[in-house]
Amino acid sequence: MASWVGQMRTDDNQRRILALADLIVRFGANVQPGQIVSLASEPGKEPLARAIAEAAYRAGAKFVDLSVFDIHVKHARMLHADPATLGFVPPWYGERMRKLGELRSAAIALTGPVAPRIMDGIDPALLGRDLLPRVRESIEIVNQRVSNWTAAPCPTASWAELVYPELEPADALERLWREVTHICRVDEPDPVAAWEERMDALVAVADKLDRMRLDALHFAGPGTDLTVGLLPTSRWHCARISTVDGIVHAPNIPTEEVFTTPDPERTEGYVTSTKPLFVSGAMVTGLRVRFARGRAVELDADQGADTLRTLTHRDRGSARLGEVALVDRESRIGSLDRVFFDTLLDENAASHIALGEGLDFTVGEEDHARINRSELHIDFMIGSDQVAVTGIERGGARVPLLRGGAWQI
Amino acid sequence: MASWVGQMRTDDNQRRILALADLIVRFGANVQPGQIVSLASEPGKEPLARAIAEAAYRAGAKFVDLSVFDIHVKHARMLHADPATLGFVPPWYGERMRKLGELRSAAIALTGPVAPRIMDGIDPALLGRDLLPRVRESIEIVNQRVSNWTAAPCPTASWAELVYPELEPADALERLWREVTHICRVDEPDPVAAWEERMDALVAVADKLDRMRLDALHFAGPGTDLTVGLLPTSRWHCARISTVDGIVHAPNIPTEEVFTTPDPERTEGYVTSTKPLFVSGAMVTGLRVRFARGRAVELDADQGADTLRTLTHRDRGSARLGEVALVDRESRIGSLDRVFFDTLLDENAASHIALGEGLDFTVGEEDHARINRSELHIDFMIGSDQVAVTGIERGGARVPLLRGGAWQI
Repeated sequence: MASWVGQMRTDDNQRRILALADLIVRFGANVQPGQIVSLASEPGKEPLARAIAEAAYRAGAKFVDLSVFDIHVKHARMLHADPATLGFVPPWYGERMRKLGELRSAAIALTGPVAPRIMDGIDPALLGRDLLPRVRESIEIVNQRVSNWTAAPCPTASWAELVYPELEPADALERLWREVTHICRVDEPDPVAAWEERMDALVAVADKLDRMRLDALHFAGPGTDLTVGLLPTSRWHCARISTVDGIVHAPNIPTEEVFTTPDPERTEGYVTSTKPLFVSGAMVTGLRVRFARGRAVELDADQGADTLRTLTHRDRGSARLGEVALVDRESRIGSLDRVFFDTLLDENAASHIALGEGLDFTVGEEDHARINRSELHIDFMIGSDQVAVTGIERGGARVPLLRGGAWQI
Repeated sequence: MASWVGQMRTDDNQRRILALADLIVRFGANVQPGQIVSLASEPGKEPLARAIAEAAYRAGAKFVDLSVFDIHVKHARMLHADPATLGFVPPWYGERMRKLGELRSAAIALTGPVAPRIMDGIDPALLGRDLLPRVRESIEIVNQRVSNWTAAPCPTASWAELVYPELEPADALERLWREVTHICRVDEPDPVAAWEERMDALVAVADKLDRMRLDALHFAGPGTDLTVGLLPTSRWHCARISTVDGIVHAPNIPTEEVFTTPDPERTEGYVTSTKPLFVSGAMVTGLRVRFARGRAVELDADQGADTLRTLTHRDRGSARLGEVALVDRESRIGSLDRVFFDTLLDENAASHIALGEGLDFTVGEEDHARINRSELHIDFMIGSDQVAVTGIERGGARVPLLRGGAWQI
């Protein structure tokens, strides 16, 4: 029996890996024949990374450019390198990104924390100086819409132990795979069709919000009373977008959000995060932020406040908002009511805001100069069924948007 | 008992890893404070790669730039990519190499085949088109002597199974670690001192050979009757060299050879390889090559001939010699009498020649125009205790150099 069960699980797992890889390549990045595909991975993610490479070559990719980031190497840097050098990034990192954009490449990144506790005990001020694997130029190619890209989760043993500490390691990994498979709709008979349907629903919500021409959003709940002003041309989108060359792609798998870029000058009030945030190698829990005239002027947390505080001092825009996103309780992630310690999953469980760089394509050209600019883009979750979201129209009328996690529009 | 033994082995292994990493960083590459360190690794080599990163940062490195090459991704390319695209290399690969040189970086590469059988069944003509992870520019920075670099072996489970198919996997890995530790003199109380001593002996041999001002070498043994003409200014070296900035480093750990660059026009006769060669993902065994006026004009093998034949048609210089090297039986690798299926180890077990690019620093400026040029540099082993090596002086006198594997000078 045991060996038969083991066999079944292996086959199951291989099937899930292939199905997820296929979804990532065909639907997420929508890789086109002749494209270079940048593939960002980490040690421990080889099975999915290799399946993606194979799916990409089957889809006609010209070259799959694997880059593997090892957080253990970054950890050694934090421990032993001259602190004055921690901001250094080799010039070829950015050059590669720019070239990927010039050559109209596809890009795939695998998320999911590997060695999530490794940076415990490192001075948060140091952590905030080295933002790798993020490079500044990756935001540029997103905003220039020259790359069809996607980020998707890759289960690993260490991530599974973080999410399900109560389970045996093998069971935890199995559970994580099962939940990720569900969240990514890979358990549907036709995952792509399932995503098209969900996307259509999100597009319909975004269209309704656009027609309301809101001036601001108001979030009210435990520890939260926050007003986020919008730009006159802020438009709502879901994560189904197109490159300048017309390649439609889904930048996040999974995605459950509608989002826009707010006015970086008009966020007021205070907000309490509803999920932990894992950023720059540090866990941030119980985050509380007060905004005045758009700036985060006070920032505290139960854990990890220093890291985030350092990040908000990174540049002119890193203490202001670049995104606001709404997520309803239909989200497959939200309905699991689990913390994944991975922004991609957690941000699609709940409404959220992001400090840092805004998203050009969500704002009319005439307001581009007003979009927040930063090297960073840090999402954190502020929504829950206990947080009421209200739209404020230009005339001042208040329209309920989310109550108890359900759309009111 | 079992757990105590397990513990002991783990500690032993950790100690070996740290000692090898330290040797690679301090003696091999001789990393200098403030340097960028390029670190080329593969999946499965994380423990040593991370120890090297840590040792490099302790030595004052500014940044360790890890690049991980996954042969499984290359395999997917071979299976599914358009064959016409297989020669494509993203421009940032070469650009990175050039910049590494410009910035006077250190470079460390970990050898040892991972998934050695993966390319079985792939058309050898296709294999010869994709030379990655080798990039043309890496030979340039070696020849410009702008980087202090080293290549060193990293034991992995898959490599161990290839070398010791008769052992249980865990025993095979333990055996490979033990032999690599011995070969790399990490089992000496002071490995650096042990290497300095061996290097001094090799320098003495090189000096003697230089004083002989040889015109050619002659190799005679089973299946071998080969004359390799030298250039007027061919000088003998061992693998302890200096960058243009005076950083002394050991480009190979281990190293047991003295070598020079021959005249690419004057190799004549036939030669039979004395060890298998693992190149471009293919195993080449029983290699037999006939040279006329310097060119490999006939090439056959028991296995893998097509791959090598394709490679020799790569460019103008890929069928001519760029190196000739002599290894005596004092080599710790040679005395194990084992095939490691890894050029770095196997080439230091036996005398060898290399098709492709020559080594500028071994030849006087006046003969630089005569050095062989190629994108490739493929070493293959032609020496054994059964192969007599004789020097031919300019006047025609013949001087025994190696007999029964022992130096005669």
